[in-house]
Amino acid sequence: MGKLLSADEMRVWHAWKAASDRVRAHVAEQIDSATGLSDPDFGVLTRLVDLGDGHLRQNELAASMRWHRSRLSHQLTRMEQRGLVTRSGVPGGMMVSITGLGSERAAAARPVHADAVRASLISRIPVAHEAAFLSILESLAEG
Amino acid sequence: MGKLLSADEMRVWHAWKAASDRVRAHVAEQIDSATGLSDPDFGVLTRLVDLGDGHLRQNELAASMRWHRSRLSHQLTRMEQRGLVTRSGVPGGMMVSITGLGSERAAAARPVHADAVRASLISRIPVAHEAAFLSILESLAEG
Repeated sequence: MGKLLSADEMRVWHAWKAASDRVRAHVAEQIDSATGLSDPDFGVLTRLVDLGDGHLRQNELAASMRWHRSRLSHQLTRMEQRGLVTRSGVPGGMMVSITGLGSERAAAARPVHADAVRASLISRIPVAHEAAFLSILESLAEG
Repeated sequence: MGKLLSADEMRVWHAWKAASDRVRAHVAEQIDSATGLSDPDFGVLTRLVDLGDGHLRQNELAASMRWHRSRLSHQLTRMEQRGLVTRSGVPGGMMVSITGLGSERAAAARPVHADAVRASLISRIPVAHEAAFLSILESLAEG
């Protein structure tokens, strides 16, 4: 069991947490103000389109989002009430389907998402450091 | 309003999100398994010690965590039930104080936190890229 973080280590840790929070908040705010979708709404709708062509089993969706079943169930209830998705019983579970409204909102949100990711993250990485930065992120993500 | 993310941009975005989630989860899991404190518990206790020498007004604590008042109030109720903090009325608000048990747990968690931050983040940044990486994070955090 080690020593406490040095001032230099603490600076890296605080910068990491602040950057992580800031990028996440910026992207979520931009999508919400342009389309009324929350970050989880956007995550559900884009997964339905990209992974399932509009339809996914609820347990596949939960696995893809790494969410607990009950958290996803509450989220989907709210999205159903807002007309973004429907659910129907199928053998062995539930099928989640995107509605026309959900598709429209997801399509409207994608360019907003792209612009927000560029503004808050990608455009701020100096070209000379892009490859090294990506390599560090991929190493961190491996766990 | 721009184009959708290119494959290269998407790779950076996914690596960023995965790295952010992975580091956060690793640090939280290590603290929880060693001390039983959740990430918010640890955040509250260390702020009480570091910013308030054991005592902070509830609204100062909320501002420091950037949490809504009601979310903090629920968190503090649970921490009070577990004997980690106490609350008392003072003119114009509530004072939150760390207990002996809370102090012990926070002290036990700090070296675990330091080791987890080193293992999941700091030790994975190549020395040659440390300065550039920190500079990018600080630029991202500025918003």
